[in-house]
Amino acid sequence: MRFSERTEDVIDSFIMKLISVSKEPGMISFATGLPDKRLFDTEGIVKAAASVLEDTESAKDVLQYGTVKGILPLREKIAERCKGSGFSVSEENVFIVNGSQECFDLIGKMFIDRGDDMAVDDPCYLGAIQSFSLYGPKFTGVPMEDDGPNMNNLEAALKRNPKLYYSIPNHQNPSGISYSAEKRKETAELLSSSDCVMVEDDAYGELGYEGRIGPSVRAMNDNVILTGSFSKIISPGMRIGWMIVPDEMTDITMKCIESSSLHANTFSQHIMNRFLEQTDLDAYLKELRKEYKRKCMLMLDLLGDHLPSELEWNTPNGGMFIWLKLKEGADAMRLFESALNKKLVIMPGRPFHINGGGNTIRLNFATADDEEMKEGVRRLSAAYGGLF
Amino acid sequence: MRFSERTEDVIDSFIMKLISVSKEPGMISFATGLPDKRLFDTEGIVKAAASVLEDTESAKDVLQYGTVKGILPLREKIAERCKGSGFSVSEENVFIVNGSQECFDLIGKMFIDRGDDMAVDDPCYLGAIQSFSLYGPKFTGVPMEDDGPNMNNLEAALKRNPKLYYSIPNHQNPSGISYSAEKRKETAELLSSSDCVMVEDDAYGELGYEGRIGPSVRAMNDNVILTGSFSKIISPGMRIGWMIVPDEMTDITMKCIESSSLHANTFSQHIMNRFLEQTDLDAYLKELRKEYKRKCMLMLDLLGDHLPSELEWNTPNGGMFIWLKLKEGADAMRLFESALNKKLVIMPGRPFHINGGGNTIRLNFATADDEEMKEGVRRLSAAYGGLF
Repeated sequence: MRFSERTEDVIDSFIMKLISVSKEPGMISFATGLPDKRLFDTEGIVKAAASVLEDTESAKDVLQYGTVKGILPLREKIAERCKGSGFSVSEENVFIVNGSQECFDLIGKMFIDRGDDMAVDDPCYLGAIQSFSLYGPKFTGVPMEDDGPNMNNLEAALKRNPKLYYSIPNHQNPSGISYSAEKRKETAELLSSSDCVMVEDDAYGELGYEGRIGPSVRAMNDNVILTGSFSKIISPGMRIGWMIVPDEMTDITMKCIESSSLHANTFSQHIMNRFLEQTDLDAYLKELRKEYKRKCMLMLDLLGDHLPSELEWNTPNGGMFIWLKLKEGADAMRLFESALNKKLVIMPGRPFHINGGGNTIRLNFATADDEEMKEGVRRLSAAYGGLF
Repeated sequence: MRFSERTEDVIDSFIMKLISVSKEPGMISFATGLPDKRLFDTEGIVKAAASVLEDTESAKDVLQYGTVKGILPLREKIAERCKGSGFSVSEENVFIVNGSQECFDLIGKMFIDRGDDMAVDDPCYLGAIQSFSLYGPKFTGVPMEDDGPNMNNLEAALKRNPKLYYSIPNHQNPSGISYSAEKRKETAELLSSSDCVMVEDDAYGELGYEGRIGPSVRAMNDNVILTGSFSKIISPGMRIGWMIVPDEMTDITMKCIESSSLHANTFSQHIMNRFLEQTDLDAYLKELRKEYKRKCMLMLDLLGDHLPSELEWNTPNGGMFIWLKLKEGADAMRLFESALNKKLVIMPGRPFHINGGGNTIRLNFATADDEEMKEGVRRLSAAYGGLF
C-alpha cells in the first residue's frame, strides 16, 4: 500500500502496549498514565446520566448531532474555571474535543508544515510528541530543571523562531516537575518578543496537592493555546478535553474540528455538564488531591525504604508521577526488562526525551492500590539488585 | 499567526452554519444530514446506560481509559454484521472511532501527500471532501449516473493511479443514488487491476427501505476500507463510527488513532454495545426503514403536488435524501436564498461537486415532522415561483 510520507514519522509510543501488558494476570503496573479508578465518582456519574436521560424529549437532543464547539453550558463552566488559573476568557474561545489528545493533533494540523521548528520541554508528554510528529516538525528540546525549563535554552530555542512551544507547567508528565513562579513569568516575557505560540498543556493543574500552584502562562500572555481535560480528575473514558484559543484562531479551529470529527461526543458532554452542576467541584477536588498526595507520600516512603541510595527521585507537589534517575550512563531499559520478569511494569523515560534520558524512569503511583504499590516497590528493588 | 499551508485548503463546509440557521425560531429545515430524532430509541439507550452503570465496579472500567481499537464485544458485533454485506472479517480488522467522520481524517492522514491523485464520486459527501482536503489531494470527480458511477470515467480516473477512490454505493449522500449490482461488480474488477484503495462509505447501508440492496464492494475486493456508523440508525450524539481495514493497514491505523485521539469514547461504546445486546436489531431496523420510507414517499407526493413539472427529482430506495434538479443553467443558490427568506433551509448541491452541480439541491426528508414537511414544501414552491 502506498502510505503517505508522514506515516514514516509515526512514533510507536510504547504506551498502549504497556497498557495491554499491564492487564496480564499478576502484573503490577507503575507504567501508564491511568488515574486511580477507585476515585471515580461512579455514583455521581450514574446520577448525572439518569438525570440527563430521564426527560425523554430532551434526551433526544442529547442523542442528536451537536455543534462544532461543544455544548454552551459546559463551555461556560470551563471558561469560568479559568479564573482559578488567573485569567478571564469568553466561552467563545473554548472548544470541546474528544479528549485533550485531539488538541495536539488539531494544533499540529493547524500550524506545522513539514520541517518547521517546534520547541518542546525535554522530557515532555510522549503522546503529544507522537501526535505532533505526524506533521513532521523539527523538535528542539528545552531541558527541564527542577523548577521548569532552562531559561537560556528556552531563549535560544525561541531564537530559532519555532511555530510552537509545547510545555506542561503544572506537575509535568513524565517528570512531576512544576514551573516556579519566576519561570512562568519569564516564559511569558520571552514569548512576548517572539512569534511563537505556546501550547500550555494543563492536564494536571487541578491535581496540585495544596491547590493550583500558580497562574497559567496564558494569564500573562495571550499568545497561548491552553489545553485541558476531565480525564485525570473525573473520567478518561468519557473523552472530554478542551482547548482555549486566541481570538485569531477561532475560525480555523472551528473548521479543523468540523473536518476531523464534526464535534465531540454530545452524550458525554451533557452528562459531564450535569455532573458538574450536581457536584461541589472544589470539595470533590479537595478529597481527590488528598488521596493522591497520600499515595504519592506512600510511594516516596516505600522507595526510601527499599531502593539503594545511589538512585535519585523527586518529591512532586501534585499530579501522578515520580521521576526516578539511575546513575549517569545506566540503561533504564535493562531495569524495565528485569522488572517485567518480576511482573512489574515501569515506564522507561527515554521515549519522553528529545535528547538523552536513557537513565530515567517514570513511576505512576495513581493506578495501583496500596498493597500493589508495596509489592511493586519490593519487585522494583529486587529487579534493581545487582543489575548495575 | 503562522498557520500551516494546509489550512489554506480548508473548505468552509456550509453544513454547520446551516445547522445553526436551522435552529432559528420558525425555520423549517430540509438542509442537514440529521436523522429523525423522534425515531431514537431513547428508552432503550436509557435502559442500556442504567444496565452498564448499575454495577459500580464494572462502571469504573467503563469510565477508565480503554484500548486503541475499541472494546472487543462491539468490534465482534460489527464484524458479525458484515455478513449481511456479503463478507466475513475478523474483529482484528475493525477499529472503532469517534464517528465515521474521524475515519476520513485518519485515511487522509495515512495515504495522502499533498498533490496526490484521489478519485471521488461527483457529487459525493461534502464532509468527506472537506476532511480529505486538509491533506491536499488533487480530486478527480467520477460523475454519478442513476445507477452509480460512469464506468468509463471511473476507469479513466483509475488510470491516473490515484491513491484512493472515495464512494458511497448505498443511498448516497447527497443524491440518494445507489450502485446497481453490475456496477458494484465492475468497480471491484476495475480496482483489482489498480493500486488504488477504495474507501467505501456505508453510513446509509442499513437504511435500504427493503433491506440491504446488495453486497458491498468490499465483499468482492479486499483492497477496500469500509467505513460505517451508528449515527444514522441509533444516535449521532454518541459518536461511534468504525473502519474495517485490510490486514496490511492494521498497524499504521492503530498508531494513527493513538496519535490523533488515543481511542474512542469508552463510555459510549459500552452503552452502545449493551443497547445492541438488549435490542433485536433487525426488528428495530425494520421499523426504522418503514418510517423513513413513509416520510420519503410523503415528500415525493408533496413535491409532485406542489412543484412545477420542469423540476426533476429521483425516487430513492433508502437513506434520507431526495435529489432535486433545476433546469440546466439555473442557479440553485438563488432558490436557496429565496427559500431562506420564506424560512425554509435547503442545501444547494454545488458544494458536493467537484465539477458543476450548480442547478442541484439536496432535500432531507428525515429531520422534519409531517406538518413541517407539508409547510416546507409549500414554502419551497412559493420560493421557486417566478424565480427562473
